[in-house]
Amino acid sequence: MADHVLILNAGSSSVKFALYSDEPQPVEITSGMVEGIGDTLLLEIEDRTSEIKAPHGASDHTGAVAMILEYLQQAFEGLTIKAVGHRIVHGGMNFTKPAELTDDVISQLETLAPFAPLHQMQNLAGVAAAQKAFPDAVQYGCFDTSFHRQHPWVHDAYGLPRKYYDEGVRRYGFHGLSYEYIHSELAQSDAKLANGRIIIAHLGNGASLCAMKDGISTASTMGFSPLDGLPMGTRCGQIDPGALLYLMDQKGMNADEITKVLYYQSGLKGLSGISRDMRKLLASDNADAAQAVDYFIAHTEREIGAMVATIGGIDGLIFTGGIGENARSIRARICQGLSWLGAEINSERNQANDQIISRDNSAVKIMVIPTNEELTIARKAKLFI
Amino acid sequence: MADHVLILNAGSSSVKFALYSDEPQPVEITSGMVEGIGDTLLLEIEDRTSEIKAPHGASDHTGAVAMILEYLQQAFEGLTIKAVGHRIVHGGMNFTKPAELTDDVISQLETLAPFAPLHQMQNLAGVAAAQKAFPDAVQYGCFDTSFHRQHPWVHDAYGLPRKYYDEGVRRYGFHGLSYEYIHSELAQSDAKLANGRIIIAHLGNGASLCAMKDGISTASTMGFSPLDGLPMGTRCGQIDPGALLYLMDQKGMNADEITKVLYYQSGLKGLSGISRDMRKLLASDNADAAQAVDYFIAHTEREIGAMVATIGGIDGLIFTGGIGENARSIRARICQGLSWLGAEINSERNQANDQIISRDNSAVKIMVIPTNEELTIARKAKLFI
Repeated sequence: MADHVLILNAGSSSVKFALYSDEPQPVEITSGMVEGIGDTLLLEIEDRTSEIKAPHGASDHTGAVAMILEYLQQAFEGLTIKAVGHRIVHGGMNFTKPAELTDDVISQLETLAPFAPLHQMQNLAGVAAAQKAFPDAVQYGCFDTSFHRQHPWVHDAYGLPRKYYDEGVRRYGFHGLSYEYIHSELAQSDAKLANGRIIIAHLGNGASLCAMKDGISTASTMGFSPLDGLPMGTRCGQIDPGALLYLMDQKGMNADEITKVLYYQSGLKGLSGISRDMRKLLASDNADAAQAVDYFIAHTEREIGAMVATIGGIDGLIFTGGIGENARSIRARICQGLSWLGAEINSERNQANDQIISRDNSAVKIMVIPTNEELTIARKAKLFI
Repeated sequence: MADHVLILNAGSSSVKFALYSDEPQPVEITSGMVEGIGDTLLLEIEDRTSEIKAPHGASDHTGAVAMILEYLQQAFEGLTIKAVGHRIVHGGMNFTKPAELTDDVISQLETLAPFAPLHQMQNLAGVAAAQKAFPDAVQYGCFDTSFHRQHPWVHDAYGLPRKYYDEGVRRYGFHGLSYEYIHSELAQSDAKLANGRIIIAHLGNGASLCAMKDGISTASTMGFSPLDGLPMGTRCGQIDPGALLYLMDQKGMNADEITKVLYYQSGLKGLSGISRDMRKLLASDNADAAQAVDYFIAHTEREIGAMVATIGGIDGLIFTGGIGENARSIRARICQGLSWLGAEINSERNQANDQIISRDNSAVKIMVIPTNEELTIARKAKLFI
């Protein structure tokens, strides 16, 4: 059996994985996730769910990765994992491209934990577990922030005293692995547009926009954290800093309490009071659910306007992510609100989920491209093996 | 001597005033301010400065208003103040128009102090002082928020759990007295445009944008507080809520400390390290000063894009406020970045500070209209006397 590359995406309570053959272009062999870290581990392979006791009894990242290893060894005889590629949320100011996860690099990445307190150490726990399970494989990391590190200074800084910029309070942006994938797909189907002025709308449970010009990310709606910009499943999106001061000063809430509200109780869930899931909201006849959807659409349009301003106009708009790839009515309504930009959607193409969903004479080419962050990581393996 | 209307704008350390004759259109007679509340009171009349000992010895709002009264009685024999109009920063959810400041209204306004902890009680201290000094005059308040109370729900709410909206965490918007004045001036010179899609850019030490359509404010860059949106003299403008969580959680800063940074040490001052004053930054050859100016321009353009999206295009852009009325190079650079909207500035008209500074064939009419918030308040006196 040929060499393989394993992709791991470790979160606080789960480890997602995808196995790729290595040559010449990575092809996905299998994928799935282990859920229930800290509780009962549950291995889920693609669409099929099977409960397996954790091999080493420990319900932590090490147990989860060991479970993945055991499954892969049983399912694919003679499997050799040459490289394990990790999705790492934060690459800070310096990691502008994938890096081999040496002890020194891991130490540097640990210092970034204060920038992503909910994710960075969980990602690195996945790395430590993979080092144990795959001691002969090269471990490398791909960063959600790298794609945005060429933002001009005005879209990298906040209007704060300079010392905060110097210590790393910057507009990092996230979803970089998704944007890189979309841009590479676009470059294959329309190279001219890929070098034009484009907005990529990654609309999923997490959601952000990326403005690109000449093939480079110029600005993103997410900045220092994955909270800003678009409203999301449970995250607030753009909010007045004065509202946080009010929660602190007038409601006596501390950082943990505010974090809980802004990350887990806000966005579509908070506004609808029903669900973070756009499908459920669209199927509901509840008035608050309808308002939550209205809010999502209005603020996506608002932020598209902001992003277009950073690149001086728009030639193409590409939808991706769970909502962007599937929710036809959301795409239609967003584009309707963008007619002032010359964006004209073709209803039949949109309904059919075609790759190009704009009218032939639309000034803005509107497209749907399904994203694949794991493949983006798998493609980087050749840099290290 | 005819009846007069006195306008008061009470801040934490000063009380600004303007005296108007009452009929038929208010005409300004004199204006000035008392500075140094809590220290040594100093009365400044228009361009002329004169130090006067506070009549009652107390360096508080009462002393300051008494000083204004004494000056007016000396300077204008037989003066009768029929009404005192107050600028009040916050009218909350309910004050959609000016109100007579009865005990009941003042009680309601006091409950809004948590929404504007730096301003509301200072404004009301000015009201109390004026009630003492002018017991026979009607006292009325005009609110910086009223102009924006018709925002559609999606531009009034944040993506938070609904209970926060219900208790008043909303996108109020400010500078409403300025926007009302600009819109009334525009309606006189170009009634059609006044009912079109317009952006008013109030660019001063405080700065915000207002998007208007059909003569109604649809959205503003300031929201719950006067911190959001554009970078300002010392205020941060749009910032990721995650950056505040970082300051709380990782830097151990409390609400007072963060308030001090975001309100008084950020914006142009924080980025330049030199000054909050745009004139000083434009005159400087310091690289940080130039970057601060770049930031101001880039983010004004970014937020104009966002505001245009809320009204589906733009027919007119009106500059006002200290920077908007005077800084020709700032206007020119902002408009240059808006050529994608069809905005074309005429350099000669801009340099001459004409009222219309766009080219004749510009798709966006660009104007400069000096604001006058005090006159807006004075015009409301007839509702109460």
